Amino acid sequence: MNDFLLLTPGPTTVPDRVLQKSSLPLIHHRTKDYQAILERVNANLQKVFLTRHPVMTFASSGTGAMEASITNCLSRGDLVLSFSAGKWGERYRDIARAFGLDVKSFEKPYGEAFSPEDVERALKANPKAKAALITLCETSTAVVHPVEKIARLTRDTETLLMVDAISGLMCDPLKMDEWGIDVVVCGSQKGLMLPPGLSFVALNEKAQGALPKADLPKYYFNFTETLKSQKKNDTPFTPAVNLVRGLDEALGMLLEEGVEKVWARHATIAQTVREAVRGLGLTIFSKAPSHALTAIALPKEIPSKEVIKVMRDTHRVIMADGQGELQGKIVRFAHMGASCTPESAKRGLTAFQDAMEKAGYRPALSR
Amino acid sequence: MNDFLLLTPGPTTVPDRVLQKSSLPLIHHRTKDYQAILERVNANLQKVFLTRHPVMTFASSGTGAMEASITNCLSRGDLVLSFSAGKWGERYRDIARAFGLDVKSFEKPYGEAFSPEDVERALKANPKAKAALITLCETSTAVVHPVEKIARLTRDTETLLMVDAISGLMCDPLKMDEWGIDVVVCGSQKGLMLPPGLSFVALNEKAQGALPKADLPKYYFNFTETLKSQKKNDTPFTPAVNLVRGLDEALGMLLEEGVEKVWARHATIAQTVREAVRGLGLTIFSKAPSHALTAIALPKEIPSKEVIKVMRDTHRVIMADGQGELQGKIVRFAHMGASCTPESAKRGLTAFQDAMEKAGYRPALSR
Repeated sequence: MNDFLLLTPGPTTVPDRVLQKSSLPLIHHRTKDYQAILERVNANLQKVFLTRHPVMTFASSGTGAMEASITNCLSRGDLVLSFSAGKWGERYRDIARAFGLDVKSFEKPYGEAFSPEDVERALKANPKAKAALITLCETSTAVVHPVEKIARLTRDTETLLMVDAISGLMCDPLKMDEWGIDVVVCGSQKGLMLPPGLSFVALNEKAQGALPKADLPKYYFNFTETLKSQKKNDTPFTPAVNLVRGLDEALGMLLEEGVEKVWARHATIAQTVREAVRGLGLTIFSKAPSHALTAIALPKEIPSKEVIKVMRDTHRVIMADGQGELQGKIVRFAHMGASCTPESAKRGLTAFQDAMEKAGYRPALSR
Repeated sequence: MNDFLLLTPGPTTVPDRVLQKSSLPLIHHRTKDYQAILERVNANLQKVFLTRHPVMTFASSGTGAMEASITNCLSRGDLVLSFSAGKWGERYRDIARAFGLDVKSFEKPYGEAFSPEDVERALKANPKAKAALITLCETSTAVVHPVEKIARLTRDTETLLMVDAISGLMCDPLKMDEWGIDVVVCGSQKGLMLPPGLSFVALNEKAQGALPKADLPKYYFNFTETLKSQKKNDTPFTPAVNLVRGLDEALGMLLEEGVEKVWARHATIAQTVREAVRGLGLTIFSKAPSHALTAIALPKEIPSKEVIKVMRDTHRVIMADGQGELQGKIVRFAHMGASCTPESAKRGLTAFQDAMEKAGYRPALSR
């Protein structure tokens, strides 16, 4: 089963170099050898997040880091604006609610993205909001949010802009410091080319200033303790040593290629895939498509489940169905991280076209 | 640096077979292939915890699972009895406090263990306690608690017995169902022979019955959601796929050997190490020594730091110093999981004896 090509929106393909480093014999985490790795990893994470602020690493899925950003920066009853345009925006909103925040939920129909004007109106109507939650790449609908312009609106206010960049980082451009984002959350198994199991949170000064006031209970995800340990190249709790060694390798690969070039590669492949899909007479589902993945809207008579099955069984290519109300209606073709290459895109497109034909799709007829 | 022998109380040596499985190309977690792995893993975890109840796996360090056991089973203001005999007992207590529980703290001097009578007195004086927190193997002092007898005291009461078996499981005997333990917490990098990054919680019916009433906020660590997903061989959030594949292999190895034989191996090696240490004229620090590790009390004139440095630099053997007030005073010689073999024990003892001699220790003189 190891010759499958993973074109799912996480986990994505992990380069052999990274897998090899993740499978080295264990070293203890409170040794000079590990501290040297952690020091390099922390410096390289800053280069990838484009920030001079600390980036913390946790052993958890991305959802853990989303929760951590809420519990460490906010207090019970705080007014929070949630901008959700899909399943992942809803998750951020639901986490905020689970911890007793006063959440005002703004929603977009699936496939659409918030405009800076939408966010501006919400912020003006709610000047006391402590935080605005938004997703960079909403993988459930494959839209990307205009985070650069949104950050201009929160930058000089008391409102923290908290961006879930779990599947967007290193696919869609994000410049934390230049744009003025306060909190960036990320996961390991997308643009960072790692197996799942690590998550990340970066905090600027404004967000760090919020830590002492935040009264929500927490222990495992504690930013104050983590930042304190990080200054000594340590972590409060046992880190996922081998995943961090893989991260070290993956960050090295990304920086060898160069952040801007990695983004450009994603932009090029995304464009190639979208054009080929349109060339088949099909529609791109997303109104503001992300570079991380392409959501393909299928004609009503073609069930996505069947297309996905043929791709998997005949071509050993794995793509994802829609989630929730989109199940059966779209195919999500991811081109993230190490799965974002011309060869993978070509193999994916060949599989997709064949599976569509086998499912009875005829471009001329369906238009 | 890969020829070091890790005789630290976690991380421990990871068998090559496990490392290899952890470095296979990624598979997606919502596929039949992964579901088959998860189903086997969940069944084998039950065999290792000796329970017919569900054992949940999380992507986190052991501390995350300790927190999860508190937030999922208890409510704000609940009376909780904490039995701490070292750093790890203190951590469980501190987590309970961080989440606003009414914690009554019982403490033993470092090196001593609670007796069943101690616990019985505390339970009788506090019949309304919702939970009693105790550590199976307290690695900071190398003591083991008499959990079998303690469970007899809580079994027919309303009080949940929550056992931190992070470093004890598969080293010191633990029979969850037969003894009647309500909650067992574990981590990956000790007796389970894995890299750090996974944690586990098993819950019996009594503990599961507490879930709906528990009002502490949580999202990432949510037992109700996890148990619901687990019935479909799924997880609420992206699992640490490759670590779980390693877990699959490690559990297979433990069950091939047999649970009782794994315990017997730890008992034998622990006895060998203790006898050799006593043969050098030294004292075992722990009054109730665990089979997972041996804490060796050093004579005042021999600083443990120096002994540990010589073992590392000359013999490439890594042992741990004491923590907190015990720093400088003890050497912790772990024999856990895959580090628990006659060869490792011999290499550890040779290194220790040589390092002690180099530090100026003369058995005859020091008695």
